[in-house]
Amino acid sequence: MSAKNITLAELSRMVDGELHGDPDIAIHGLANLATAVAGEIAFLVKAAGIETLKNSHGAAFIVPRTLSYDDKPVIKVANPYLAAAIIQNFFQAKPFQTTGISPKAHIGSDCDIPAETSIGPFVSIGDRVKLGKRVFIHPGVVICDDAVIGDDCLLYPNVTVYHSCTIGSGVIIHGGTVIGSDGFGFATDENGNHVKWPHIGTVQIDDNVEIGANVTIDRGTFGKTHIMRGVKIDNLVQIGHNVKIGGNSIIVAQVGIAGSASLGKNVVLGGQSAVKGHIHLDDGSMVAGKSGVHSNVPKGAIVSGIPAIPHKDWLKASIIFAKLPKIYGELRDMQKKIVKIYEKIFPDESQD
Amino acid sequence: MSAKNITLAELSRMVDGELHGDPDIAIHGLANLATAVAGEIAFLVKAAGIETLKNSHGAAFIVPRTLSYDDKPVIKVANPYLAAAIIQNFFQAKPFQTTGISPKAHIGSDCDIPAETSIGPFVSIGDRVKLGKRVFIHPGVVICDDAVIGDDCLLYPNVTVYHSCTIGSGVIIHGGTVIGSDGFGFATDENGNHVKWPHIGTVQIDDNVEIGANVTIDRGTFGKTHIMRGVKIDNLVQIGHNVKIGGNSIIVAQVGIAGSASLGKNVVLGGQSAVKGHIHLDDGSMVAGKSGVHSNVPKGAIVSGIPAIPHKDWLKASIIFAKLPKIYGELRDMQKKIVKIYEKIFPDESQD
Amino acid sequence: MSAKNITLAELSRMVDGELHGDPDIAIHGLANLATAVAGEIAFLVKAAGIETLKNSHGAAFIVPRTLSYDDKPVIKVANPYLAAAIIQNFFQAKPFQTTGISPKAHIGSDCDIPAETSIGPFVSIGDRVKLGKRVFIHPGVVICDDAVIGDDCLLYPNVTVYHSCTIGSGVIIHGGTVIGSDGFGFATDENGNHVKWPHIGTVQIDDNVEIGANVTIDRGTFGKTHIMRGVKIDNLVQIGHNVKIGGNSIIVAQVGIAGSASLGKNVVLGGQSAVKGHIHLDDGSMVAGKSGVHSNVPKGAIVSGIPAIPHKDWLKASIIFAKLPKIYGELRDMQKKIVKIYEKIFPDESQD
Repeated sequence: MSAKNITLAELSRMVDGELHGDPDIAIHGLANLATAVAGEIAFLVKAAGIETLKNSHGAAFIVPRTLSYDDKPVIKVANPYLAAAIIQNFFQAKPFQTTGISPKAHIGSDCDIPAETSIGPFVSIGDRVKLGKRVFIHPGVVICDDAVIGDDCLLYPNVTVYHSCTIGSGVIIHGGTVIGSDGFGFATDENGNHVKWPHIGTVQIDDNVEIGANVTIDRGTFGKTHIMRGVKIDNLVQIGHNVKIGGNSIIVAQVGIAGSASLGKNVVLGGQSAVKGHIHLDDGSMVAGKSGVHSNVPKGAIVSGIPAIPHKDWLKASIIFAKLPKIYGELRDMQKKIVKIYEKIFPDESQD
Repeated sequence: MSAKNITLAELSRMVDGELHGDPDIAIHGLANLATAVAGEIAFLVKAAGIETLKNSHGAAFIVPRTLSYDDKPVIKVANPYLAAAIIQNFFQAKPFQTTGISPKAHIGSDCDIPAETSIGPFVSIGDRVKLGKRVFIHPGVVICDDAVIGDDCLLYPNVTVYHSCTIGSGVIIHGGTVIGSDGFGFATDENGNHVKWPHIGTVQIDDNVEIGANVTIDRGTFGKTHIMRGVKIDNLVQIGHNVKIGGNSIIVAQVGIAGSASLGKNVVLGGQSAVKGHIHLDDGSMVAGKSGVHSNVPKGAIVSGIPAIPHKDWLKASIIFAKLPKIYGELRDMQKKIVKIYEKIFPDESQD
Repeated sequence: MSAKNITLAELSRMVDGELHGDPDIAIHGLANLATAVAGEIAFLVKAAGIETLKNSHGAAFIVPRTLSYDDKPVIKVANPYLAAAIIQNFFQAKPFQTTGISPKAHIGSDCDIPAETSIGPFVSIGDRVKLGKRVFIHPGVVICDDAVIGDDCLLYPNVTVYHSCTIGSGVIIHGGTVIGSDGFGFATDENGNHVKWPHIGTVQIDDNVEIGANVTIDRGTFGKTHIMRGVKIDNLVQIGHNVKIGGNSIIVAQVGIAGSASLGKNVVLGGQSAVKGHIHLDDGSMVAGKSGVHSNVPKGAIVSGIPAIPHKDWLKASIIFAKLPKIYGELRDMQKKIVKIYEKIFPDESQD
């Protein structure tokens, strides 16, 4: 899978590891424990999987620093999953291939496109668009007037970037994603007809953001929708107008974030969760999958449910929810007993 | 942002307002209170925000009719949000730019395309397609055979319209949306294999509908899926085969409506809600975000939850849901006390 | 709607039916009971709809085998819905139209494309792509390097197939769908920055799969994401990296399946449901719409809710959930009564 060859010693240095075993072993790829073959390094995330490691055919292994095992060549690190990702990036990285602008692409007027670029067939670029260096644009992408795309961006097929949106450096956008569509804003007249609010804002996406496939990010009504540095967005996510997402936040698939909501740094939104408009989720907060967040979430809090409540409370309540039929029966039984007791000890009182 | 100049008096007439202040002030744009600068008009939706207005640098303000304030130039109206939208539309409206048919577009045979049109590069139009006047089609749009598109429609990049679908006038469709895909209908044989139902129906979209990005609207099995006049659909919404959506309904992002469900007029579906197939939501009904509607909803009713129940009941039940762990403890305590009472007053009875 | 003519006798044989009525009646199309006209056959799924049949203008009817009715010409079958689908497929089937490769398409180097093919304008096919016979590719589709597509596939407009994905025979993919985007996998360093896991796996889609519009299917981190024979996937579904979906499973719209989850054969996931990563749903299990499945589901089980529990339990619990406000009042009332009883019969004990 890779034409690169590197010694175990070099790999260990790359991930700040502690090497046990022959430093000169040549490694040409990374695989998981089950499928690794000679010449490949594999990785063990948790010590509990040590038996799988023993049966693996890999030539060497990235393991947790705390693991007391060195029968096979191992690189011990604090975070094996991270070290494996770094090594895999080394093996998979390829130099940028400049194919230039396909003669089947369309480039508008007054664009700024460096020589070191790759623009595929049927890519349509509007007027006054600026592209950074080493931008790779797959076929079928449409970039509208006045958009700006930074260096080293990768746009997969059929992505749409509306006019005047700005995208930083090192951004990856997967197929079918739409950046900069109008926000969902209407004013309703006395007859129930909806008058469209023109959306004159934009979308700003900062460096090192990755956006999945068929995502939608609306432009601001005024001002901008802003996705900050290092944010990772999964597939089919909806981000409303004027939303702010703080650096390194993680937005799992099919999440919806309503207009003008804001997320702090390192927030995690589980799959299919939803955030109401105009609320704030503070730094490091987490929302469980399928939850609906109706109000602000404090720093570091974990919330679940519809409406979302502290996760621990939700877990307990959910367990009791499943017992409700049994509890309901017990309650009816208690009511009968209380009636009986009352009749016995308060014979003159009427029961209501 | 706009090259237009207009007097405050003219703006006031446009929105049927009551002007306080110099009628000859020249205004060239609309902004919100926080960002408005000289020459711009801003708007105050609710009287409570009056302090923000006082600090705003805007030249004039649209305010609620009931507000007793005229220190700065104001236009008083019944619905400031609506008036602002109308004024913003005035400032942002541009005359239609006829760019004609791009030489990089593909037009099938026997089409009916007026001169006053704009069709971008890599737009593919099938055979016998009819377009109205002043239709603007962005790059990458595909319109299949026998589709009909009315006057003044705006199709953003990479939209797909399947064969034989009909779209009215003044319709806006955002990027990546798919109109007319087959409904999800299969008949299952005795071996568990699914036989596809050919979908020979169509989709009809009436005038002044707006559809967000990456929406999917399936065609009818027989007959049509029908989106009526003035309906507004947000991003990533799924509309099944043969669904009917009544005029001016609002469908928020990521909603799913199953096959043959029908909505009356002015229905509102909150984000990520779902409607079961073959049920009816009557005029003016509302569904809270993330709800799942399993049965008919009467006129004007508001429902929430999975399954959806009247919203007020759901609100109360949700508050108690969060208290279930505490309640459960109290119940266990009561049970113990009842046992103790029984032992005291019915010493001869066995407890079960 | 169809140029075909066939006798009732032939249709009856096609669906293994029991014919009552003139075998020589000529039929040229299938419709539903309400809209069928002379020359058309209609179908009655359940005996209960017999009055609609009596009022129908259809020339003949497919009815349940158990129905004792033959006043009009009928074909009696075990499964009328299935028989109708088979007959509709007969009427709607058209011979493959070979239009060849559009001169406005782009074909990479070293591709393997049979003569019997139809590739529309602005289709971009990468290098070393293999297409089967009678593949129909609508405009705007992008197929990246090294992808393989089997015989008789139908790709609607603006579909994206990433590099090295393999698609079997008889597969239908609706507009805007993205196959093979990177899985959502990152390793987080000590500063909260996310390091991307390169996804070196692929997607394999087996024969007779149908995939709706704007679906996203991620490629494997290692190995493959695998959609097995006869699976039907509705619109806007998200399928994570390394997911396995067993044969003939049904995935309704807007479902999300997280990475490395696996489904057995004939599993049904209701609309907007979600499946957690790394769990298994066994053969024939069913998940109700909007549910969130957090743990393995046994063979044939039906589950509902968030988290999902057995469907029958969830139904009961949901009914009680709606009664919680009333129950809570009763509980408070019982508590007061118990206090009163205690005061009476245990006057010396303090209440806590």
